[in-house]
Amino acid sequence: MKKSVGAKTIVYPTPAFVVGTYDKTGKPDVMTAAWGGISSSNPPCVSISLQKVRYTYENIVEREAFTISIPSERYVKETDYFGIVSGKKEDKLSTSGLTAVKSEVVDAPYVEEFPLVLECKLVHKIDLGMHTQFTGEIMDVKVDESYVDAKGLPDITKIKPFFYDPAGRSYYGVGKNLGQAFNIGKEIK
Amino acid sequence: MKKSVGAKTIVYPTPAFVVGTYDKTGKPDVMTAAWGGISSSNPPCVSISLQKVRYTYENIVEREAFTISIPSERYVKETDYFGIVSGKKEDKLSTSGLTAVKSEVVDAPYVEEFPLVLECKLVHKIDLGMHTQFTGEIMDVKVDESYVDAKGLPDITKIKPFFYDPAGRSYYGVGKNLGQAFNIGKEIK
Repeated sequence: MKKSVGAKTIVYPTPAFVVGTYDKTGKPDVMTAAWGGISSSNPPCVSISLQKVRYTYENIVEREAFTISIPSERYVKETDYFGIVSGKKEDKLSTSGLTAVKSEVVDAPYVEEFPLVLECKLVHKIDLGMHTQFTGEIMDVKVDESYVDAKGLPDITKIKPFFYDPAGRSYYGVGKNLGQAFNIGKEIK
Repeated sequence: MKKSVGAKTIVYPTPAFVVGTYDKTGKPDVMTAAWGGISSSNPPCVSISLQKVRYTYENIVEREAFTISIPSERYVKETDYFGIVSGKKEDKLSTSGLTAVKSEVVDAPYVEEFPLVLECKLVHKIDLGMHTQFTGEIMDVKVDESYVDAKGLPDITKIKPFFYDPAGRSYYGVGKNLGQAFNIGKEIK
């Protein structure tokens, strides 16, 4: 039997996207966003949702660009910190000891120590209530050379990303491989 | 050093959302969507992106409603099957042996055997290119009674959801708990 838990934002998984932007003075800032996901294949787009009060909000509006850096497990504390503190008050990259790198593709910085980066140009913005959804076209994806598979694509077992559980308010790592997509379902057919 | 892998839809994690709809004849259909995520807290909203050719596309446009059922690991094959085959050709629920339940909240069915369900009313639709993004207001969330924690909220360790890796085209389960959000980052501060 299913029971109602109310109209809540509970779903699995939600990401721990580290969104990189420049502020008016050119200072790089990062914030962690769990509301978002891929939203189109061609052009490749990713959407993230932010509250207007976030420092990142004005940065994206002004520069029309953002990056998403995907942290490895070992940076879970830094990632959590990026979601706790505002860039209005602190230079989060400096405090955390991590390094901002200026994207050569869009007007936004990414985190050098994080193995996977999406560089995005703002293409759409909509106010959904408490959050505004920004959709960015993915202009390029970059990965650390040592974190790729035999095909040269990002290797999840090397990257060791993690995700957010909005019910338990915890982070979880990647578990075991459960099978190849567009393949294991064929036996049902 | 980071290297470019091109403008691809690669990010971690992406979900395996099983989207439930009714077609014109009232037949329940399900499809698996990896493009999507939570998009607002208040009102609580979730966005999913679909190609126009999908059977689900017209169903959502006509009924202005959909559900998202979150499968447990044990249903990874059925979930993959729901992403391989079109509801135009097959009665996917019947073939898989799973059960459609009519939502009492929105005009869409969900999968009884899957432990977590979001019931959504369409509030926004935008064409982003190959995909159209549908945003639904989450009218209610339902969970199997035996899959909750001490607070009555969904327990990820009981639900055992999984996610999709778009680079390796594989499904992965939940790994270890890496710490409490809005807490473990305090020590950086």
